[in-house]
Amino acid sequence: MKAITQIKEFKEGSDIRGFFLCVEKHLRNTRSGDLYLDLVLRDRTGQITAKLWNDINELQDKFTVGDAVVVAGQVDVYLDKLQLNIKKINVASVQSYGRYGYDPGLIVPSAKSDAKQMWKEVTLYIKKIKNNFLRTLVTSIYRKYETQILTHPASVVMHHNYRSGLLEHNLSMAKIGLPLAEHYKVDMDLLMTGVFLHDIGKVKEITSELEASYSDEGNLIGHIVLGRDIAVEAAKKIKDFPPDLLKKVEHLILSHQGQYDWQSPKKPKFREALLLHLIDNLDAKMNLMEKAVEEDVEEGKWTSRRNYFRIPILKDNLENEDNGSK
Amino acid sequence: MKAITQIKEFKEGSDIRGFFLCVEKHLRNTRSGDLYLDLVLRDRTGQITAKLWNDINELQDKFTVGDAVVVAGQVDVYLDKLQLNIKKINVASVQSYGRYGYDPGLIVPSAKSDAKQMWKEVTLYIKKIKNNFLRTLVTSIYRKYETQILTHPASVVMHHNYRSGLLEHNLSMAKIGLPLAEHYKVDMDLLMTGVFLHDIGKVKEITSELEASYSDEGNLIGHIVLGRDIAVEAAKKIKDFPPDLLKKVEHLILSHQGQYDWQSPKKPKFREALLLHLIDNLDAKMNLMEKAVEEDVEEGKWTSRRNYFRIPILKDNLENEDNGSK
Amino acid sequence: MKAITQIKEFKEGSDIRGFFLCVEKHLRNTRSGDLYLDLVLRDRTGQITAKLWNDINELQDKFTVGDAVVVAGQVDVYLDKLQLNIKKINVASVQSYGRYGYDPGLIVPSAKSDAKQMWKEVTLYIKKIKNNFLRTLVTSIYRKYETQILTHPASVVMHHNYRSGLLEHNLSMAKIGLPLAEHYKVDMDLLMTGVFLHDIGKVKEITSELEASYSDEGNLIGHIVLGRDIAVEAAKKIKDFPPDLLKKVEHLILSHQGQYDWQSPKKPKFREALLLHLIDNLDAKMNLMEKAVEEDVEEGKWTSRRNYFRIPILKDNLENEDNGSK
Amino acid sequence: MKAITQIKEFKEGSDIRGFFLCVEKHLRNTRSGDLYLDLVLRDRTGQITAKLWNDINELQDKFTVGDAVVVAGQVDVYLDKLQLNIKKINVASVQSYGRYGYDPGLIVPSAKSDAKQMWKEVTLYIKKIKNNFLRTLVTSIYRKYETQILTHPASVVMHHNYRSGLLEHNLSMAKIGLPLAEHYKVDMDLLMTGVFLHDIGKVKEITSELEASYSDEGNLIGHIVLGRDIAVEAAKKIKDFPPDLLKKVEHLILSHQGQYDWQSPKKPKFREALLLHLIDNLDAKMNLMEKAVEEDVEEGKWTSRRNYFRIPILKDNLENEDNGSK
Amino acid sequence: MKAITQIKEFKEGSDIRGFFLCVEKHLRNTRSGDLYLDLVLRDRTGQITAKLWNDINELQDKFTVGDAVVVAGQVDVYLDKLQLNIKKINVASVQSYGRYGYDPGLIVPSAKSDAKQMWKEVTLYIKKIKNNFLRTLVTSIYRKYETQILTHPASVVMHHNYRSGLLEHNLSMAKIGLPLAEHYKVDMDLLMTGVFLHDIGKVKEITSELEASYSDEGNLIGHIVLGRDIAVEAAKKIKDFPPDLLKKVEHLILSHQGQYDWQSPKKPKFREALLLHLIDNLDAKMNLMEKAVEEDVEEGKWTSRRNYFRIPILKDNLENEDNGSK
Amino acid sequence: MKAITQIKEFKEGSDIRGFFLCVEKHLRNTRSGDLYLDLVLRDRTGQITAKLWNDINELQDKFTVGDAVVVAGQVDVYLDKLQLNIKKINVASVQSYGRYGYDPGLIVPSAKSDAKQMWKEVTLYIKKIKNNFLRTLVTSIYRKYETQILTHPASVVMHHNYRSGLLEHNLSMAKIGLPLAEHYKVDMDLLMTGVFLHDIGKVKEITSELEASYSDEGNLIGHIVLGRDIAVEAAKKIKDFPPDLLKKVEHLILSHQGQYDWQSPKKPKFREALLLHLIDNLDAKMNLMEKAVEEDVEEGKWTSRRNYFRIPILKDNLENEDNGSK
Repeated sequence: MKAITQIKEFKEGSDIRGFFLCVEKHLRNTRSGDLYLDLVLRDRTGQITAKLWNDINELQDKFTVGDAVVVAGQVDVYLDKLQLNIKKINVASVQSYGRYGYDPGLIVPSAKSDAKQMWKEVTLYIKKIKNNFLRTLVTSIYRKYETQILTHPASVVMHHNYRSGLLEHNLSMAKIGLPLAEHYKVDMDLLMTGVFLHDIGKVKEITSELEASYSDEGNLIGHIVLGRDIAVEAAKKIKDFPPDLLKKVEHLILSHQGQYDWQSPKKPKFREALLLHLIDNLDAKMNLMEKAVEEDVEEGKWTSRRNYFRIPILKDNLENEDNGSK
Repeated sequence: MKAITQIKEFKEGSDIRGFFLCVEKHLRNTRSGDLYLDLVLRDRTGQITAKLWNDINELQDKFTVGDAVVVAGQVDVYLDKLQLNIKKINVASVQSYGRYGYDPGLIVPSAKSDAKQMWKEVTLYIKKIKNNFLRTLVTSIYRKYETQILTHPASVVMHHNYRSGLLEHNLSMAKIGLPLAEHYKVDMDLLMTGVFLHDIGKVKEITSELEASYSDEGNLIGHIVLGRDIAVEAAKKIKDFPPDLLKKVEHLILSHQGQYDWQSPKKPKFREALLLHLIDNLDAKMNLMEKAVEEDVEEGKWTSRRNYFRIPILKDNLENEDNGSK
Repeated sequence: MKAITQIKEFKEGSDIRGFFLCVEKHLRNTRSGDLYLDLVLRDRTGQITAKLWNDINELQDKFTVGDAVVVAGQVDVYLDKLQLNIKKINVASVQSYGRYGYDPGLIVPSAKSDAKQMWKEVTLYIKKIKNNFLRTLVTSIYRKYETQILTHPASVVMHHNYRSGLLEHNLSMAKIGLPLAEHYKVDMDLLMTGVFLHDIGKVKEITSELEASYSDEGNLIGHIVLGRDIAVEAAKKIKDFPPDLLKKVEHLILSHQGQYDWQSPKKPKFREALLLHLIDNLDAKMNLMEKAVEEDVEEGKWTSRRNYFRIPILKDNLENEDNGSK
Repeated sequence: MKAITQIKEFKEGSDIRGFFLCVEKHLRNTRSGDLYLDLVLRDRTGQITAKLWNDINELQDKFTVGDAVVVAGQVDVYLDKLQLNIKKINVASVQSYGRYGYDPGLIVPSAKSDAKQMWKEVTLYIKKIKNNFLRTLVTSIYRKYETQILTHPASVVMHHNYRSGLLEHNLSMAKIGLPLAEHYKVDMDLLMTGVFLHDIGKVKEITSELEASYSDEGNLIGHIVLGRDIAVEAAKKIKDFPPDLLKKVEHLILSHQGQYDWQSPKKPKFREALLLHLIDNLDAKMNLMEKAVEEDVEEGKWTSRRNYFRIPILKDNLENEDNGSK
Repeated sequence: MKAITQIKEFKEGSDIRGFFLCVEKHLRNTRSGDLYLDLVLRDRTGQITAKLWNDINELQDKFTVGDAVVVAGQVDVYLDKLQLNIKKINVASVQSYGRYGYDPGLIVPSAKSDAKQMWKEVTLYIKKIKNNFLRTLVTSIYRKYETQILTHPASVVMHHNYRSGLLEHNLSMAKIGLPLAEHYKVDMDLLMTGVFLHDIGKVKEITSELEASYSDEGNLIGHIVLGRDIAVEAAKKIKDFPPDLLKKVEHLILSHQGQYDWQSPKKPKFREALLLHLIDNLDAKMNLMEKAVEEDVEEGKWTSRRNYFRIPILKDNLENEDNGSK
Repeated sequence: MKAITQIKEFKEGSDIRGFFLCVEKHLRNTRSGDLYLDLVLRDRTGQITAKLWNDINELQDKFTVGDAVVVAGQVDVYLDKLQLNIKKINVASVQSYGRYGYDPGLIVPSAKSDAKQMWKEVTLYIKKIKNNFLRTLVTSIYRKYETQILTHPASVVMHHNYRSGLLEHNLSMAKIGLPLAEHYKVDMDLLMTGVFLHDIGKVKEITSELEASYSDEGNLIGHIVLGRDIAVEAAKKIKDFPPDLLKKVEHLILSHQGQYDWQSPKKPKFREALLLHLIDNLDAKMNLMEKAVEEDVEEGKWTSRRNYFRIPILKDNLENEDNGSK
C-alpha cells in the first residue's frame, strides 16, 4: 500500500492516500443534476474540501460525519484553492486499518505521553491510598471505566481537550497533590480520592469518538452531578462504607470547580475540598498556557491575544541569556 | 392555668406565664460565685433577656437552645430595660402543652393559611397529573415526606422563610402553573412535576425544629442535588419508569434556580424547565415584596431600603383614590 | 401573471417573478464605464445578489433600500454562486400588488396569529378593566395608535421581533396577567393597564416599514419614556383623572424592565409594578426559547449555543416516550 | 435673650438655649404612667437625646420630626451620657426667630458660598446663551423654580448634599463648562442648557425642608424624567421652539448620568451630551473627595476607608515641602 | 517623477506610482515552481493585494513587513478584485524620498495639527509651572524623549491612536487642565506635571515605526510603571528634589487610569490625582466619540453600534435648525 | 515580680500585672474637672477599658497608642462590665522587660513557627538557586531587609496577617514551589526568585510595630511597585546582571496578584509568572481557611459565614470515622 500523505503535504496534481476525520458531508446535485458528495476532511495537519463524483450509491452510506475515513484520491485546484477528488473512501478503525498505519493520533490531537504508561502510574498512586474504603472506591470505579478513562479528553474546548487528556490531567494532579497534601497536613487519602474522582463524570458527559461532544446526560445533568452519582453508586457496593466519609467524597466532587459560576453547586467547605479545587485550577491553567503557546500562529516572541488568557503570552526566551551558572 | 402573656405585653412588676423559643442559654457565675442561667427568649411579638437564679442543677438540663419552653416568672427592670426573672421553666411540645395553649405559631412565624388545608389542595393538584409515571412519582414522594412538607420553610432567610412556607410556595406555584402551562402549550404534567419536586431537597437541607438551619447534608451537598436524589430513588421503585423522562425530571430540579450564581449546576434547557424557573422566581419575588412591606417599621407611605430589593417600597395607596368605577 | 418564486427555489437559468425586500442598493460602474445597480434582495426563504443592467435612469429611483419590490428576472451563476439578472423592478405595496399575491408576510417574518384576530381579543381584555379612568386611558391610546399596534414588532433584535410582535406580546401578557393578578390579589385594573401600555412607546421608538429600526426619538429618548408620554398626554384629556393614579401608571411603564441595566430609570416599587415586570420577562423569555429552537440550523436534538441563552437547547423529545397515560 | 449654645458646647448642669433639628420624637409613658416626649435633637455640631416631662398636652403638637425647634432646657447626665431636659420648646422659622439668631445654616450643613451671590453669577452665565430658544427656556425655568433652586441640595446622600448644593453644583459646572465647550468645539449653548437643566428634576424629586428626602414623584418617577418634563413643558410655551432642538435638550437631561446603572435610560449619543455627563461626573467626584476629607474623624494624614471612594484619602501635605519657587 | 496615486484611485489597467505600508509579505511558489512575493499594501485610503513576479532575488530583502515602501506597478483584476503587479519596489523614508513626496501621513493616520506646532505650545505650558523642581523635571524628560513624543500615538487601539496622538492628547489636557486646576483650587504645578508625565511611559511601551505595537518592556512592565521609572530617574538627577513631592508625582502617574481594571495599581488618593484621572478620561472619551463618527461608514444620521460606546452616535444635526440667534 | 495575668483571666476585685497593647488613649476631664486617662488595652486573649486617675502629668507622656505597655492595677466593675484601674503604667520593650516575661507574642498574634528557625530554612532554599545572578539578587535583598522580614506580617487584614507572617508565607511557598516547578518543567531559579521577592515590597508598604498599618509609600505607591524597586535597585549593584532576566523578575513581581482587580498592573505572561501567582493564591487561600476555623466563635461543627469565604466552613470531622485502615 502507498505511503500516507498528510494534508499539509498535498500538492496540486499529486495522488494521495491517507486517513482523515470526516467533519462535513453533504449530498448535492451538480448543475447537470447528478448526485455527488461534498465533504470536508481534517487531520492533525490541516483541513481540505473533498468531492466524490462516482459510485455515490455504493459509497455514500459507508461513513458518516465524525468517522475516521481512509481515502485515495487526487489533488487539484478549484477557485484558487486545493481540493481533493476522491476515488476510494471507507471508514477506518484501528481493527481494520491499524496495520496499514491508522492511528487516531493521526487525525485528532492526543496527550503527549502514552495512555497505557500513564494508566500504570495512576494505578501506583491509587495504591498509596491507605484508607481501605477510599482505595476500594477509587479502584472499583477505575476498573469499571478503564476504557473511557484511557481515551477521554478532560474537556471539550478548554484544558486538556485531547485524546487521553482526562488521564493526563488526573495523573498530573496526583503528582502534585502528594507533596501539597503533606505540606498542608490535610487528609492525604481524601485529597487523592478527590483527585481521581473529581472529573470522573466526564466519562458520561462527553461522548468521545474522535470528535468530543456532549451527551444528553451531559447536557441535562452535567459531569459534576454525574460524577457524584458514580461515587455514590460504587460506595453502596462497598460494605460498611462510612456515610460521613461518603458525604465528604460527594462534597469533594460537587465543589471542585470552586465557584458557582463554573457550575459547582457548592463551594469548598473543608480544607481537602479547597486544596482539590486549587490543584485542579492550577493544573488546568498551566495546561492552558502551554496550549496557548503551542497553538499560536503569530510570528515573533509573543502570541496573539486570541487565547484563554486574552493577553499576549511570551513564547520563548527574550534572548539567549547568560545565566551565570556556577 | 394562667393566661398566656406575650412579650410585647410584658410590664414591669407583672407575673407572667408563656411559651417562648430559647435562643440563647449561658451558664454563668454571679459575682458571689453562684451559678445562674442567662437566657434570651423570643416569641412572635418580641425578644427579652431572662435570668434563672434558683434550682439551677435541676432545671438547667431540661431544655436547650432552639427548644420551645414554657415559663413562669416575673418582669423587672435592669439597666433601664425589661428582663424576666424565671421561676419555673420546662421544654414545651404540642403533645405535652397543646392543651394549655401551646402552638408553634405562637413563637415562630407561620404561613397564613392552615397547613392541612393547603395539603389537601396540593393533593388535588397532584391528581391532575395525567402521566402515570409522573403522578406516581410525585405521590410517592409526598407520602414519604408528608411530615416535613407540612412544616418546613421554603428557605432559611429568603422567601417563604416561615413554618409551612415550602408547602405554601408549592401550592402557590401550582395554582399559577396550571394556566401558564396551558397558555404556553408546554407539557403540563412535566411542569407540575417540576413544581412539586423542585424544592423537595429542602426537607433534607433544612433542619426545621422551630429555628431553621442547615443540616450537614445541606451544607455539603445542597437541596438541589438532594432533591434530585429523592426523585431518582423514587423513580427506581416505579416499574418501567422511562429513563429519558427521568432525565428531564432531574434537569427540572437541577436547573430550577435558573442561573449558576444561584447554585443551579445547569441552566434551563427546554421550555418546561424554563417556565418552572420563571414561575419559581415570580412567586418568590412576589412573596419577598409582601414580606418587605409587612416587616417594615418605618412611618409613612414608604418602607426603608433595608429589604431584599434595596429600594423603598410603597406600603399603601398614595391616597384614597377616586377609582371611577362604574 | 406568472406564479411567485421564492429565493430558496431559484435554479440556474430559470425565469422568475417575485416579491422581495431590497436590503442593499449601490449604483456602480461596469469596467466599460456603464452604470448598473448592484442589489441585495431578501425574502423569508433566503437572500440573493441581483444586478440591474438596463434602463438604469428610468428604474433607479423607483425604489430604495427598505422597500418591498416586485421583480422579474433570470437566475444565472457568477463566481460559483446564484445571482439574479433583473429585467423589471418596481416598488410593491398591498394597495398596488396585493391582488397579484403581495403580502408583507412573504418577505418579513410575522406573528403566527392573524393581527386582526389578536386585535379583537385584546379589545375584549381592555373591556374587562373596571376602573373607568384606566379603561378610558387604554382605549383612547389603542384607538389612536391602532395602525402601528397592528403591525409593530415588540423589539428590533430580541423577543417578538417580527411583524405584529408587539400585539402578540401584549395579548399573551394579558392572558396570563388575568389569573396571576387574581392569584396574588393585586389591583387587576392597574396590572392590565400596565400590560397594555408598558411597551406602547415602541410605536414611536421603532420605525417599522418592513425593516425595523430606531427612530430619532427612539435613539434619543427611548420607548420607556416615550410610552409614559403617551400615557400622560392621554390622561390629560380625561376629565378628573386622579393624579396619584396617573403617577402609578407612569411608574408601571418606567419600571417595567425591572432593572437599571435594561434602561428602566426606576425599579418596581409596588406589587403591580413588580408583577408587570415579572410577566413581561416571563413572556419574553418563553418567546426567546421558542425562537432559539425555530431558528436553529444544527442537525440533531440540540441547538447550537448561538442563541439568546448561550447554551444548547433541547429541540424535541429525547425519544418517543411511553407516557404511561391512563 | 440668652446666647445660643451649640450641642458640642453642652456641659453637665448648664442651662442652655438653642436651635435644633428634631430628628426623632416619641410619645412614651414613664413607669408611673405619665406621658413624656422622648426626642433626638441635632445641630451642625452634634446630636443629643432630650426629654420633655411637663406641659405635654400643650407642647407635643407644636412641632414634628423634621422641624427646626427653639429650645430652652438644662443638661444633665443619664446612664453616663449627656441629655437635655427641655423646659420650653417651639417650632422655629426665619420669619419668627431670625431676629433671635435662627439661621437654617446653624442646624443643617450648607454650601460655603452665599446662595444669593451664586444665583447672581448663574444669571450672568445664563445670559451668555446666544440661542434665543435655549436662553428663554433656561430663564423661564429658573424664574419659576427660583425658591427651590436657592435652597435645594444636589442629592440626598451623595455629592453636594447640603443646603444650596444644587445651585453650587450648577454654578461650578457652568464655570468649567465654558472653557471645555470652547476647547472641544461643541455647541456652547446646548452644553450650557444641559448644565443648567440636567438636575432640575431634583426640585421635584427631593423634598427639602431641612432634612432632604424623596417625594412620591421622586420615588416613582425620578429626577431624570421629572427634569425632562420641566424642560418639555417650558418649551411648549415658547413660540416655534424647534422640535429637533428640544429632542436634543431632552436627551441631554435623560443621558446625563452617563450609564444605565446610574438610572439614565439613555447613554450620551452626541458630543454635547457626552461632555455634559463628563463634567457632571467630574464636578461630583471632586466634591465627594473634598467631603471625604472634611468629614473624616481619624487622626493622622490619611482618612479612614469609610467614604465614597472606599480608600484612604490624603488629608494634607505629606510634609512642609520646599517648593523651590522662583 | 510621476504623480503619486492613492489606493482608492486605482483603476484596472492604469500604471501607478505611490507610497504604501507593507502589511503582509509572503514568499510563495507559482504552480510552475517559480518564486514570487505575495504582498498586502495599505495607505490612508485603502488596502490592496500586490504581486511581485520578477527580480525576486534582488528585491525581496529590500523591505520587510512594517516598512514604508515606494512602488511602481500596474493595476489589474484577479478573481473579480483589483490587484497590483509590482515592477519596482524599495523601502521609503523621509530622508530618501521626502523630496519625492513621501510623508508618513500618507500611509498612516496622524493627528490633525502639526506636531511641531503642538510641541511649541506644550513648551509654553511647561514654562508656566512655577515650582522649580517640577518644571525642571518635566523639561528634562521632554528634552530627552523629544523625538518619540513628536510621533508616538497615545495608544495602540483606543483613543488618539495615530501619529503624534500622544502629543495631541497631552496638549489637549494641558489646555483644559489650567482652568480646571484654578477652579478647583488644586496645586496647579502638580496637576500640570501629571498632565505631561502621566502617559510618558508610552514612549517605551509602544514601538511606533508606522505600525504601533507593544515592546517587550511594554508587555512585561507596562507604560504606567515605565512612566514612573522615567520620572524617578529624572528626579534623581535634580539636586534636592523633595522626596515627598516625588512620591506625589509617582502616585499621579501610577493612579492616572483611575481604577484597577484599567491597570492602575493605585486609585487616586488626593485631589490633584483625582482631577488628573478625570481630565484624562474626559479627553479620551471626547476623542473616542469624535473617532466613532469619523470612522463610521453607515449611511444616515446615526453611526452603527460598532464603536467604543457600543451605541449609535448621532453624526450630524437632526435638521438644519433655526437657532433663533439674536 | 508578680505573675502576668491575661485579660480573659481578669476577675472583679483582683490585683493584676500584665503586658498589653494600648489601642486607644484619651485625656478627659472628670465631672469635677480633674484630668484622667481613658484607655483601651488589648492582649491576645481580649480587650478591656482602663482608667488612670492619678499621676496623670507624670504618666501621660510615657506611652502612646500602638505601644506595648506594662501595667499594674485593680479590676472593678462599671456599668456591668469589667474595667481596669491602673496604678502603674510604662512602655514595654523586649530590651527593658524581656526578662520580666514580655514577648510581643503575648499581645499580638504571631506565626506558629519560630521566626529564626524559619529564617534558617529560607536561607537553605535560597542557596538552591543555581543561577548566580538570581541567587545573589535574593541573598543581597534578604540580607538588607533581614530585620523586617523576621517580623513583618504578609498583609494587614487578609492572609498571614500576624507577626512573621510574611516569612511564614514565603517559606511555605518555597516548600511547595520546588516540587511544582519540577513537575511543570519551568525554570526553577526564576520561580524561586519570584517566591522570595514577590511580596518584598511589604517591608516598605506596611509599618509594623505591633499594629500593622500602611506607610505613606504603601498608600501612594503600593507593595507591588515598591517590591519591584527593591529588585531593580539590588540588580543594579550586581555586575552584568542580564537585562532580559531582570525584566522577567520585574514581571514576576508586578504580575503576582494575577489580576488587575487585585492591583497587579500586569497579568502573568509566561509560565513561571503564572505558576508563581497560582502558588501564592493557593498558599493564601489555605491560610485563610485555617484562620476562618481558628477564629470562629460559633458552637457546633460549622463556622459562621463571617469569614473570607462568606460560607460556613466545616470545623472538624463530621464524626469519628472508621477509616478502615489496613
